[in-house]
Amino acid sequence: MKDKSRPCVMLLRKRNWSIFLSLVFITPAIHATPSFAASEDLIKDAKQIFGPPLPEVISSDTNPVTPQKAKLGKMLFYETRVSVDGTVSCARCHPFDLYAADGLRKSIGNQCKVNPRNAPTVLNAAGQISEHWIGNRKDVEDQATQALLGPPSFGMPSYQAAEDVLKAIKGYPPLFQAAFPENKDPVLAENFGKAIGAFERTLVTPSPFDAFLKGDKKALKDNQIQGLKTFMEVGCMTCHSGTYIGGQMYQKFGIFEPYWNYTKSQKIDDGRYEVTKQESDKYVFKVPMLRNVEMTAPYFHDGSVGHLEDAVWIMGKIQLGKDLTKEQKGSILSFLTSLTGTIPEDALKVPILPPSD
Amino acid sequence: MKDKSRPCVMLLRKRNWSIFLSLVFITPAIHATPSFAASEDLIKDAKQIFGPPLPEVISSDTNPVTPQKAKLGKMLFYETRVSVDGTVSCARCHPFDLYAADGLRKSIGNQCKVNPRNAPTVLNAAGQISEHWIGNRKDVEDQATQALLGPPSFGMPSYQAAEDVLKAIKGYPPLFQAAFPENKDPVLAENFGKAIGAFERTLVTPSPFDAFLKGDKKALKDNQIQGLKTFMEVGCMTCHSGTYIGGQMYQKFGIFEPYWNYTKSQKIDDGRYEVTKQESDKYVFKVPMLRNVEMTAPYFHDGSVGHLEDAVWIMGKIQLGKDLTKEQKGSILSFLTSLTGTIPEDALKVPILPPSD
Repeated sequence: MKDKSRPCVMLLRKRNWSIFLSLVFITPAIHATPSFAASEDLIKDAKQIFGPPLPEVISSDTNPVTPQKAKLGKMLFYETRVSVDGTVSCARCHPFDLYAADGLRKSIGNQCKVNPRNAPTVLNAAGQISEHWIGNRKDVEDQATQALLGPPSFGMPSYQAAEDVLKAIKGYPPLFQAAFPENKDPVLAENFGKAIGAFERTLVTPSPFDAFLKGDKKALKDNQIQGLKTFMEVGCMTCHSGTYIGGQMYQKFGIFEPYWNYTKSQKIDDGRYEVTKQESDKYVFKVPMLRNVEMTAPYFHDGSVGHLEDAVWIMGKIQLGKDLTKEQKGSILSFLTSLTGTIPEDALKVPILPPSD
Repeated sequence: MKDKSRPCVMLLRKRNWSIFLSLVFITPAIHATPSFAASEDLIKDAKQIFGPPLPEVISSDTNPVTPQKAKLGKMLFYETRVSVDGTVSCARCHPFDLYAADGLRKSIGNQCKVNPRNAPTVLNAAGQISEHWIGNRKDVEDQATQALLGPPSFGMPSYQAAEDVLKAIKGYPPLFQAAFPENKDPVLAENFGKAIGAFERTLVTPSPFDAFLKGDKKALKDNQIQGLKTFMEVGCMTCHSGTYIGGQMYQKFGIFEPYWNYTKSQKIDDGRYEVTKQESDKYVFKVPMLRNVEMTAPYFHDGSVGHLEDAVWIMGKIQLGKDLTKEQKGSILSFLTSLTGTIPEDALKVPILPPSD
């Protein structure tokens, strides 16, 4: 049975959730619980579902990572002067001390504006099919660039205004020139996004689970191995698959029951419908990555659930139609701890920004 | 003449500005411009005025710095969850990327409340006679503790509420216990302040000027040496003296003319009068340290002047009654760059905070 479910997962990446539903949830044979071997085959099974371990850098054809770009990008990641009230930088909603999330239900941007959704971590984020919960940002470069104008984020009136701020800080133009030697006038909002994107492509957090995927059987503790089995047997990996344990597809939040019956959501979010205006995309969100999930409470698109144990139970209930036992929840939680990785040392070192002139 | 002015500076530390005025500004002999030798005596002169170079750690009798306290303090420095809206930490207004100031005229705290004054850097701040512009915080420990309740900073309703937040994050109690082994129930607001204070006492930034004070004549460039002479000849060092080049006394801002005639202040600030209610303390502020001053625009208690060159000129005009020439301004600016120090490597490494449970 498990042999059937795995190709299905592969097929489904980047596909619409409705196809997914018809294959996985409506077809009983696939929906039934597979039974994974406790033996050495487990690594083989895991490799097939989760694919290769994390890369060292998440590459991009359109924005190759260079040291100059990543260095500038790290500085810009901390730059508050480029926001309309001087208080917002990428680091404000993605501080590394909280694993690049901010601990809030919904992030607070310039002039106390509330963002529409919870801030997902930027760690490993470049590995996803798109950015933001509803996939309305193509990639990390697009996300960073558009954040400049986002009314509840940086809130700048125009890209030109942001570029003017950066040009007025004398230390920046030479750094942009070094990062974008092909541009004659390189202090551009697009390059702001590319530099930050390049930095974010280095934000990869290898964890014990990667060592396990590489074949080190002792990389996971016994309870984490048991948890991995539970995670696969219960069916979590039908969506949370691939190297990033998620981030590869869209899915309706609340397949068996509306999500707001279980979360503490204050309002109903139409999800990806906002992007596509297709009825089938109502309450559809990008499946979040589970890497470092234990470090990034609160959970879900609206941060409406504070405890990971509760989030796991709700997922079982409304996505898989299963009332997970206390033992199953605990087991899955154990597996999830194996996804907590190490933030690159260089990323944790605060850059010094050029002073205002 | 210089021999007269130096003991005067020594006498004046920690004294009221009115005594200072009577000695320095009313006594013409002392107010006249001294002439410092360009010779090797300059180091000797500088040592007498500025005293010893920066210590490695700014010690405290009441809060001895231990590695456990400083480690916990660095974590708490980044902790936003202990603010009423989850957005404020010490690092918000004192980010190391901008040399532990925030680049704003006045800091923005919880729920977008505007702080009454500009955020001074916390680098070397423990070396001052008191904290805050008007000296209404005894020391860095007191400042950090009271920030928890400060309506425009963390805005917590009570110390108890802050302690409850910290206790609910399971990772913290053991760290408090390790830092304060003498306390049975160590998760206390007072210890929050002590831990952060201990961390801040390590935030010492040795600069080329310290090497110069230690006797290395080549530590300063020629224009910085000339700038040091100008700084002393013009009279800046009558207030900006001691190891921290300031931070040791209170002084009226606007001795020769009201400050608001020259700054872009939006309202008149009574200064230390707010603390003492003494008429003589109207418009009196703590003399700010000049260490790292080129990195921490904007300037003055209300951040009303954006450029250091302008701030230097205004100081000459209203504090010393001198219309500094372009050459004198440039020369003083050169000296000020020798005060830009190195932030300790460990301080620049972002700590990982215990996750919410």
